[in-house]
Amino acid sequence: MDKRPWEANIRKVVPYVPGEQPAGDRLVKLNTNENPYGPAPGVRKALREMDAGGFRKYPDPAANALTAALAARYGVGQDQVFVGVGSDDVLGMAFLTFFNGEKPVLFPDITYSFYPVWAELFGIPFKTCELDSSLRIRKGDYGQPNGGIIFPNPNAPTGLLMGLDEVEEILGRNQDVVVIVDEAYIDFGGQSAIPLVSRYENLLVVQTFSKSRSMAGMRIGYAIGHRDLIRALNDVKYSYNSYTMNMPSIILGAEAVKDEAYFQETLGRIVATREKTKGWMRELGFDFPDSQANFLLVSHGQAKAEWLFEQLKKEQIYVRYFKTPRLDNRLRITIGTDEEMEILRKALEKLLQFADVYAG
Amino acid sequence: MDKRPWEANIRKVVPYVPGEQPAGDRLVKLNTNENPYGPAPGVRKALREMDAGGFRKYPDPAANALTAALAARYGVGQDQVFVGVGSDDVLGMAFLTFFNGEKPVLFPDITYSFYPVWAELFGIPFKTCELDSSLRIRKGDYGQPNGGIIFPNPNAPTGLLMGLDEVEEILGRNQDVVVIVDEAYIDFGGQSAIPLVSRYENLLVVQTFSKSRSMAGMRIGYAIGHRDLIRALNDVKYSYNSYTMNMPSIILGAEAVKDEAYFQETLGRIVATREKTKGWMRELGFDFPDSQANFLLVSHGQAKAEWLFEQLKKEQIYVRYFKTPRLDNRLRITIGTDEEMEILRKALEKLLQFADVYAG
Repeated sequence: MDKRPWEANIRKVVPYVPGEQPAGDRLVKLNTNENPYGPAPGVRKALREMDAGGFRKYPDPAANALTAALAARYGVGQDQVFVGVGSDDVLGMAFLTFFNGEKPVLFPDITYSFYPVWAELFGIPFKTCELDSSLRIRKGDYGQPNGGIIFPNPNAPTGLLMGLDEVEEILGRNQDVVVIVDEAYIDFGGQSAIPLVSRYENLLVVQTFSKSRSMAGMRIGYAIGHRDLIRALNDVKYSYNSYTMNMPSIILGAEAVKDEAYFQETLGRIVATREKTKGWMRELGFDFPDSQANFLLVSHGQAKAEWLFEQLKKEQIYVRYFKTPRLDNRLRITIGTDEEMEILRKALEKLLQFADVYAG
Repeated sequence: MDKRPWEANIRKVVPYVPGEQPAGDRLVKLNTNENPYGPAPGVRKALREMDAGGFRKYPDPAANALTAALAARYGVGQDQVFVGVGSDDVLGMAFLTFFNGEKPVLFPDITYSFYPVWAELFGIPFKTCELDSSLRIRKGDYGQPNGGIIFPNPNAPTGLLMGLDEVEEILGRNQDVVVIVDEAYIDFGGQSAIPLVSRYENLLVVQTFSKSRSMAGMRIGYAIGHRDLIRALNDVKYSYNSYTMNMPSIILGAEAVKDEAYFQETLGRIVATREKTKGWMRELGFDFPDSQANFLLVSHGQAKAEWLFEQLKKEQIYVRYFKTPRLDNRLRITIGTDEEMEILRKALEKLLQFADVYAG
């Protein structure tokens, strides 16, 4: 078909493809790294008490209740906190705000697959740095000339954690650009770089409510950094959409931050289940990096990942399969409840009996 | 202070400044064109029944419940509906998606002040077309070479409506670019261009839940157009943030669309109050375009707008004042309840007694 004239000015993009969101009560959903436990009790209470009458008014454009709760929790100034519609909005806005140089932005070749998508969307030059053979970030790569740096810690989908000393080493060598540490999974076993923001004005730490705080459905992410970085982010935000956070996300988000005991308890359960899962995965012959996140990236010598992925789906068990170089024989499996992991274990045991026959 | 090296790559913007969101029970808030009546009863019911446990999961990235409700209401295919975080998100995304040509995008010089902000943010060339002396859009201006067109109908902050035949005339002359009609206020008295989308593939109609549907606090906007325009918008959206609509906005937004009777009833009340307000405003000596929106843009021969704005604020009455050329002696006043407008009337009557003395 001929191209219509009005199509000439349309932006060309290759969008990120999110994980499936299959519906149904009986399925075991281990494909999008959601938290198997519900949000904090205070969130339920605040939801019950919410007044729909208030929806007629615009929400607070600065989302003060939410940024105040985060500032208190992390011991920073309220002007050091930026919030957005999930960490995707925060990261996308950060790409648009901070990565406007001529030199390429650096990030790992195997990482959150949205990074190259944002770079393409906004016309930002970038260069990927290859992970080593054990899928670790080679911090030496981040000494080359660049227009900015971003990496997740722990990295996704490997789950591998970098120590804070290594993060600081990268920061130390890159004080002339903005360095973003994407800590979506840090609460499951790592040390956050947030304490470093008082010493490095060019450090932006991004976290999310979608994993450890069990609020994926509310879409809340945040960045913590020097107040000048946060001001720059807010300037760009106010140039795009004055009110990104709706009333429920501000009210319920603040509640989710306040219940530290519940937060620590559910984190502890997920970490315990993860370690238990590592044990039986090894016994079944699976190979995986030693993840400190709420997922494992597994492969098996006798069964192809894509085959396992399809077979598990038939059993109503959803895991994530990426058909991309170096990942196309691995599965990313979210840590669910002990019960869910037990259903997975039984399904995998059964499948592996047939693996030699079918997955040659 | 010397510029720090990491500041070099930061995007320079002059952000849009939203209207104040003062808090307090006794104030009369007529400054951000909010609906004085609450959302539909079905919204309250769905809020009461909402399960916080569901927040642990990601929302439906396609927001199907919401797009289906809108498609049914407007008699279009579900693939002809795009939703975003308020019409600001929808419009900002549309600028990024459709306005990538070399020629300038055209819009009125007095209009929604976010248009030039988005153009600057994304580096889009634009040209403004001067309203005539009675603040009307001169449709002849929109025949010149351009890379796209956008205008609100009714225009803001004038409230002046263009007939559908005039909208179609502009469309007819611009079939080679995307034309966006921003209908944030159409429900208060205009004829929507939505029926034209079946005949003009290059027409995108944008509406919002913030005004006529009383859901400003939920941040929901939408665009209706040819499925190829909607697909292009979704491609860019999925290149920025997979999940822009959180769970409450999807569920409660769908409910807000379903109650047509409540919608018509509250619209009727606002329109009646507007016409009554026009009557006493004229009697008090105010001058204003004949608004078909939920606000009036008023000026007074004997009292300066900025002075009235400050004085009203002292009485806890908030209206909007724009300190910009051609608008700096006018006030934009939202139509509230009859009671609120009566409080305003009394305050203005009192102020106008002193106007000669203080506002010379």
